[in-house]
Amino acid sequence: MVAVPSSEKSLIRHIRELAKAKAVRPLRAGRQSTVALGIGDDTAILQVPVGHEVLITTDFSLEGVHFRRDWHPADSVGHRCLARGLSDIAAMGGTPVAAFLSLALPAKLPRAWVEGFLHGLLALAGEHGVTLAGGDTAQAPGGAEGKILADIVVVGSAPRGEAVRRSGARAGDAIYVTGRLGASAVVLDRLYRKENKSLNTKQHAEHFYPSPRVAVGRYLREKGISRAMIDLSDGLSTDLHHLCEESRLGAMVYEDRIPVARGATLKQALHGGEDYELLFTASPKRAVPAMIEGAPVTRIGEMQRSSAGVMIASGTGKSSRLQPLGWEHFTSRKR
Amino acid sequence: MVAVPSSEKSLIRHIRELAKAKAVRPLRAGRQSTVALGIGDDTAILQVPVGHEVLITTDFSLEGVHFRRDWHPADSVGHRCLARGLSDIAAMGGTPVAAFLSLALPAKLPRAWVEGFLHGLLALAGEHGVTLAGGDTAQAPGGAEGKILADIVVVGSAPRGEAVRRSGARAGDAIYVTGRLGASAVVLDRLYRKENKSLNTKQHAEHFYPSPRVAVGRYLREKGISRAMIDLSDGLSTDLHHLCEESRLGAMVYEDRIPVARGATLKQALHGGEDYELLFTASPKRAVPAMIEGAPVTRIGEMQRSSAGVMIASGTGKSSRLQPLGWEHFTSRKR
Repeated sequence: MVAVPSSEKSLIRHIRELAKAKAVRPLRAGRQSTVALGIGDDTAILQVPVGHEVLITTDFSLEGVHFRRDWHPADSVGHRCLARGLSDIAAMGGTPVAAFLSLALPAKLPRAWVEGFLHGLLALAGEHGVTLAGGDTAQAPGGAEGKILADIVVVGSAPRGEAVRRSGARAGDAIYVTGRLGASAVVLDRLYRKENKSLNTKQHAEHFYPSPRVAVGRYLREKGISRAMIDLSDGLSTDLHHLCEESRLGAMVYEDRIPVARGATLKQALHGGEDYELLFTASPKRAVPAMIEGAPVTRIGEMQRSSAGVMIASGTGKSSRLQPLGWEHFTSRKR
Repeated sequence: MVAVPSSEKSLIRHIRELAKAKAVRPLRAGRQSTVALGIGDDTAILQVPVGHEVLITTDFSLEGVHFRRDWHPADSVGHRCLARGLSDIAAMGGTPVAAFLSLALPAKLPRAWVEGFLHGLLALAGEHGVTLAGGDTAQAPGGAEGKILADIVVVGSAPRGEAVRRSGARAGDAIYVTGRLGASAVVLDRLYRKENKSLNTKQHAEHFYPSPRVAVGRYLREKGISRAMIDLSDGLSTDLHHLCEESRLGAMVYEDRIPVARGATLKQALHGGEDYELLFTASPKRAVPAMIEGAPVTRIGEMQRSSAGVMIASGTGKSSRLQPLGWEHFTSRKR
């Protein structure tokens, strides 16, 4: 057990005060779920209306694993930290309500970094009406050499029995994705090529400030369009595999229908992680709008009663297995 | 971003399978809250009955900060990790329902360590009817030199408006604690004196396998006895300060009434952390049993309308301020 130097103690206290001052919003009339008690007790208290169930997801954001301090500005790290959890709630068609942040900091971390981090996190929280309702703070192991360690919990709600699971797809369902894929991977490749100094982070929001598709997910659930859904955090190839596994089906996707982001390759669109778009299935008879809540929606294939897993057909009609080569090494594994 | 070596990937997969196989219990009839969907989707789904609210707490367990691998057996680390969260639910008078584990592991960690950790965590979860419903896994930063990083979320429920807060104390309330205090600090002192090899961990459950007072907390809430409550994780002096702050009151405690554990000093009982007992206040007119759910209950003082904070009276009647010297450096700060 290491002793926390007093500068560190005061930093931790500072975070708590900052979070408390900025984040505990008044209860809002008309919101479906509310935080009755936030930071400052043994637990937070959440109220979920009658007929709703509670959605919970947790995601690590670890320095050197999920972000690098020389690549990602502090507010981008905070934004991305929360975005991971919001995207999981979106993939259930849920409404996010509250977040809990566990944050361990190395000794001698500049205060400005922590403020930037919280600023990024709380700005995105504000956009989605999410309250930072608690968490934990600690010194990171390793003293001054320690790494920044964050774990975010996002809690949401959905009407009972209506949350969209990965397991609900049926054979013959059409497969759709939102947005365009591979843009985050393009930026990551540039970072690996040491172009971090020349990258304008604000102009590459797709990587530094991604927008989780919460409104799209909710629309799809409310309209009863999506039978199964998952968010594209690990990459299309890997996440479609997860959906197929849980639905106990195979899938066929068509190379020439994949919505590849400008500047990205097909490979980046198929395997690049952290796009935070949604992948869902719908009955082939169901009309699905080409644009939902500002996001283009593209039909890329169909679910099949097959044990062959995920197949991909080229423009010439030749099909082969689509291996799950999503960036597990980069995003680590999500739940 | 570091690449996860394949041995690590397989370890992470192993954890997930182990947790999934062991932890996802069938829904139980008669339970107040249930996990409708556990590991394997974007989020878990929890159902809370009508008229109940949701309690949520998160706690880090970081190697070198909250535990040491040469001091604590793997199953003790898993047990203590969950115990921290259960104790917070106990302090609200709640019923724990589900846990979420975020676990980052260094490269080359023996598989037996992970199995021991999960065994300890799941054994305690089983005792309390808690389902491990999700989480996240990642490689810890630092490769083979990395540290084990765990963050536990515990979710519980309580009837709406009945969860016992820190802020409910009134001037004149009697102050009680459960159990005997300082036993965990005694063991910790021995560990610091390098007696770890001669300590029988099973015989020192108070430190290695603490029992959170969930049944006591629930009893106090159901009977309407406790007006304010907190768990003693940071030490009596610090935690009583937290309760006073939230209740905007002072307190007087009596040295000769503190239930000091066998072998412990008064100082260890006052400032030693990680006892995981409960501290609560009750109306002075209210009869409080001397034993609740197997735990002795001791009246140690009273709440006062005073801005002097927490005072302590010696056997001779002389009183002085009780400084909050709880082991923040050891347990880090809890929410």
